[in-house]
Formats: sequence, structure tokens, C-alpha cells
Amino acid sequence: MDKTPSNADDFNTNREAIARIRQLRKAAANPEELARKIKEGDRVALSRGITLIESRNNEHREKARLIIEKCIGAATGTVRIGITGVPGVGKSTFIESLGKHLTEQGHRVAVLAVDPTSGVSGGSILGDKTRMQQLVLESNAFIRPSPAGDSLGGVARKTREAIILCEAAGFDVIIIETVGVGQSETAVHSMVDFFLLLKLAGAGDELQGIKRGIMEMADGVVINKADGDNLKRAQKARVEFKRALHLFPPKDNGWTPEVLTTSALKHEGITEVWDLIRKYVEENQKSGWLQSKRAGQNRQWVLQTIDEQLKLRFYQDPAVKAALEEQLRLVETHQTSPITAAHILLDLSR
Amino acid sequence: MDKTPSNADDFNTNREAIARIRQLRKAAANPEELARKIKEGDRVALSRGITLIESRNNEHREKARLIIEKCIGAATGTVRIGITGVPGVGKSTFIESLGKHLTEQGHRVAVLAVDPTSGVSGGSILGDKTRMQQLVLESNAFIRPSPAGDSLGGVARKTREAIILCEAAGFDVIIIETVGVGQSETAVHSMVDFFLLLKLAGAGDELQGIKRGIMEMADGVVINKADGDNLKRAQKARVEFKRALHLFPPKDNGWTPEVLTTSALKHEGITEVWDLIRKYVEENQKSGWLQSKRAGQNRQWVLQTIDEQLKLRFYQDPAVKAALEEQLRLVETHQTSPITAAHILLDLSR
Repeated sequence: MDKTPSNADDFNTNREAIARIRQLRKAAANPEELARKIKEGDRVALSRGITLIESRNNEHREKARLIIEKCIGAATGTVRIGITGVPGVGKSTFIESLGKHLTEQGHRVAVLAVDPTSGVSGGSILGDKTRMQQLVLESNAFIRPSPAGDSLGGVARKTREAIILCEAAGFDVIIIETVGVGQSETAVHSMVDFFLLLKLAGAGDELQGIKRGIMEMADGVVINKADGDNLKRAQKARVEFKRALHLFPPKDNGWTPEVLTTSALKHEGITEVWDLIRKYVEENQKSGWLQSKRAGQNRQWVLQTIDEQLKLRFYQDPAVKAALEEQLRLVETHQTSPITAAHILLDLSR
Repeated sequence: MDKTPSNADDFNTNREAIARIRQLRKAAANPEELARKIKEGDRVALSRGITLIESRNNEHREKARLIIEKCIGAATGTVRIGITGVPGVGKSTFIESLGKHLTEQGHRVAVLAVDPTSGVSGGSILGDKTRMQQLVLESNAFIRPSPAGDSLGGVARKTREAIILCEAAGFDVIIIETVGVGQSETAVHSMVDFFLLLKLAGAGDELQGIKRGIMEMADGVVINKADGDNLKRAQKARVEFKRALHLFPPKDNGWTPEVLTTSALKHEGITEVWDLIRKYVEENQKSGWLQSKRAGQNRQWVLQTIDEQLKLRFYQDPAVKAALEEQLRLVETHQTSPITAAHILLDLSR
């Protein structure tokens, strides 16, 4: 068959692509090299770095640890924003609108997600390809779905580590999305500078939010979908939320959470949200409060890493591995009690 | 001052009370004795046993472990019911009404609670003395508030252990109450035979319940406050919930969750709820499914005990204790990274 120039081009492109993939695989074998490329802003290297973080393979984890060591402290002056809200509140439209506003201003924006349910449902926030269609095309934006099929602790650790790599790669605004599920908000709150709660007017879940402590965590509340017939209700809800927030004791940094309204769909109110976040960051950086908040978060990171590693170590212990199933069988057949079985296994790993 | 006979009686009563307290303290020193008294149905011994379970003192924990060893498997044919619902749904009124219905039929009912927020808010479900005023007076009922100030894991372990002691003391129906907060429902679901979801008509939190997987966990749904003006709405909601439940894949025991309406305040519909639970227990005991469910729960109990003990052991290690604060300080002052600090501490405890 006669090769047309177009076919030859394709062929060369393929060869180049294959060579590039080989080169990347090789780079992945070398954490120093991968860390260097990440710090140069190489998006493919960044993706590979995060893939190593998400891997269950011990060798990959060790490589990831070395990369993080090299990347930590590489970036300064970044802003980490946590965004939560129940399904239907318009989180992805809001993040897309905020993200585009930021890239237009020259910021580089990374969007990560913490979703402990993604493993159960098979889906994943940010995982849906149809979401954030515009932001995903921006060269100054990086979007990564939530790692699936893990405990909240595991997902949180991975997200925390991914933040470091994104910042080292030059992304100066990191948005962490979470869905109002379980304790994921607490996890996200523990890794961001500013925590934003998205609400709808008259959704009637105020009491839940208060009871679950989410309102208390919020540095700002945004009533979204404030457009059309909904505009008046949103403005009323804004006043009510402002009043409700005053019922809480003042935050220890003296910050009073602001309530804003947006129409993410129409890109209205987004500038005001970013202005609020900037004001918060400036004030709290000046006072030194934000620096000590991040120090406290790093402290928590140490303790969470320890918890996770203790379990890994225990269940990888050959003596435990050999006895675990037998002990569980004895418990299931009522030949021993759960507490005794646990202590027998614990004594094996001493 | 002249002692009246009445004063003398008081004096004797006091002496008896003091002697009794001394005797109890002595008994508490002896786990075998305490376990024996619990199995005789001694309520004070039962309370002391649960207090030992809730203690942070290592010696108390070891005693508690010995008591549980003696009590485990002492009771058969008990029913463990988990009840959840958002604040305001009328949980305590419902539990009081169900509890009274059961004691009237000769059952002995224990009510425990899992509330991981109780430590934060200072309050506690079941802790409010004004709640369940009638049930608390019943000699065949035992009500214990949620242990406070702990992680969900800790609260869950303590509740699981308290169930064993209550059953050994002759309580044949154990009700575990939880509030719709965080992952506490999952914890309660993992320790009961039957999981009941309380709802209100038109509360609008259906989506949340579905998204958070609570609907999927329910073996039965009860629309409470089905009285007065609300009756028609409740009956309509019942039909809607039945339809919604059909959207879920069938449960692996073949059970189809039933939706009922109650007015706990007027004691209406309570008999039907108990009939439903009895039907569920009978069917699933016949098929052997309930026995294997409990076996699986015991398996989970082993793993949770291990997790908790691993942490306890690590943080009580003298080498870790000596180095922990220094490492955390280095992290906070950016002289080392969180991951490196964690690994240094982990290596110390090897």
C-alpha cells in the first residue's frame, strides 16, 4: 500500500509518542528526575507523580515519598481552598467559573477532590468527563479526580501529598472539592487555608449543617444559583445565614465568615468570592495566623501518616499474615472471642 | 441534739449505703466477681462494668477485657436494633414508646447510644435527663448515655462491648440510638441485627440519605409524627419511600425493607414496628443469615480492636514518647517534612 505523506506523518508522530512514553517510564524509575520535572512545571510528570502517590505498590509509595521530600517547601504564597456542598448545589459549575476567573487573572489553578464514597458507588466527583468542560481545556488548569476505592484516611493522605506536587509544579491556587458526605469535610478542612460552604436558598438542610459542625468550619458561605426566580430567595437566605453565623462563637483568628450570593452559571458574584478569599489570606498572613494554621495541619499530617503506616506494617507482618485467617475463623465459629483473637494477633507482631 | 427515730433510720440507711459502696468497690477490683454479678442481672454491677469499658486507664481496660471474656456468649436469642434519624425526627419519643411496648410484653430492654459529636458539643444523646422520663423508671429497662470525648472508633468499640454486658445481664432487646452524623450510622449498622431509619414526611433530605448510603442500610423505614395535620402527608410519604426503596438492588438476605408510619407521641403504629422486627429476625434466623451476619460483625470487631491497640501501643512506647514532641516541633518550624518525621518515629518503635 502506498504511504501518503499524511500517513507518514502519523507514523512519525506515533514513533515520537512511543519514544516519549519510554522516556517517561524511565524517568518514573528515578524519583529525583521526576521531582525535577515536576518543579519545571511538566504536567505529565505531575500526573505520574500523583499516580505514584495513589499506588498501593510499596515500591511506588517509597518513590512517591522521595518525590514529595524533594517537592515540599518548593512553593510559597499558594492558596488552598476547600469547597463543600450537598449534591445539586452546583459545585462543579461554581469551581469551573471560579477557576476560569483565576486563570484569566494569570493564576495557575489545580482542582483535586476528596470523595470517600467514590470507591463504593463506582463514580467519583471530578471523574465525570462531562464536568468542567471549559476549565479542563485551560493550559493553566490541572484537574484530577478523587482517588477511588480507599478509606477516607487514605484518600485524605493522597490528596494532601498531591497538593504538595501541584504547588511544586507552579499551581498557586489549589481547590479541593468534597461532597457533603461523612467526615470528608473535616478531612478537607484540615488541609486548606480557606473553607467555603456552598448552599442553595431554602434547601432546608441548615440544621444538619449546624449539627454536623460544617457551618462552624466555614470561612465563607456562598448561596449559589442566585438567578432568575431564585434571586430574591437567595438574597433573603443570605441575610438569614449571616444572622445564623453570628450565633457561633467568634473564630480564634477573629475572622467573621462572610455570606455571598453567586450565579456560577452566569458567572455572577465570582469576583466577589475571590476578593473575599484574598482578603482572608492577606489578613491572616499578616497576623501570622495562617502560617501557624499550616504548621498545625502538618502536625496532623504526621499523626495520620503514623496511623496509616502502623496498620500497613501490622498486616504485612509474616507472623500476622500466617495467623490472621485462622483467628478470624475461630471468631466466626464462636471458638474464641473477638477481643482475645485481636490480642493473640497483636502479640504475634510484637 | 436529740436524734429522732427518723434521723436514726437515715443514719442506718447511710451506713448500709456506705457498706454497699465499699462492697461494690471491692467487687470492681475482681473482674470474675463483677462478671458473675452482671450475669445475675445486677444493674449496679452492669453499670460498673460499662464504666470500666469506658475508662482510659489501662488497668481498667484490662479488667473490662476479662469481664467481657466471661460475659461473651452468655446470652442467646437477643435482638439488637439500630435506630437513626436526623435531629427533630422524634428519636427519643419513639424509643421510649417502643421500649415501653417491649417491657409491657415482658422483654428487658437496654438503650445505648453512639454519638461521636457528644465530646465536641459537650452534650450527648441520651445524656439529657429530661428524655425518656417514663422508660428510665422501668425496672426492665436500662438506659446508658453515649460515652463522650472520643473518636468514633472508640465510641463504637465501647458500645459493642457494652452490648455484650447488657445481654449477659439478661437484657434481650438492645436498642442502639445514633444521630445522623458523620459515619456513626455505618458504625451502628455494623453492630446490630436490624437497622431502622426514622424519617419525617416531606423533610426533603431523601437525596442526602440516598447519597450517604443510609437508605441502603435500612432494614425498615418509619415515618414518624404521623398524626393530626401531618397524617395524610405521612401516608403519602410512605408510598413514596416504598417506591424509592424498590430502586435499590435487593438485599443479599432477600429481605425487602418495609415502610411504616407511627405517632410515637400517641403510641400509634409501635406494635406494627415490633412485629416487623420480629418477622425479620425469625426469617433471617431460620435461614441462618442472621447468624452469619453476627459472625461477620465479630470479624470486623477483631480488626477494629487491632487498629485501636496498634495506636495505643505506639504512643505508649517510651522511645516514641521521648521523641514525639521534638519531631512535631521540627515539622512545625519547617525543619523536616511531615512524612520524614512520621517515618523517624515509626522506626523508633520497631
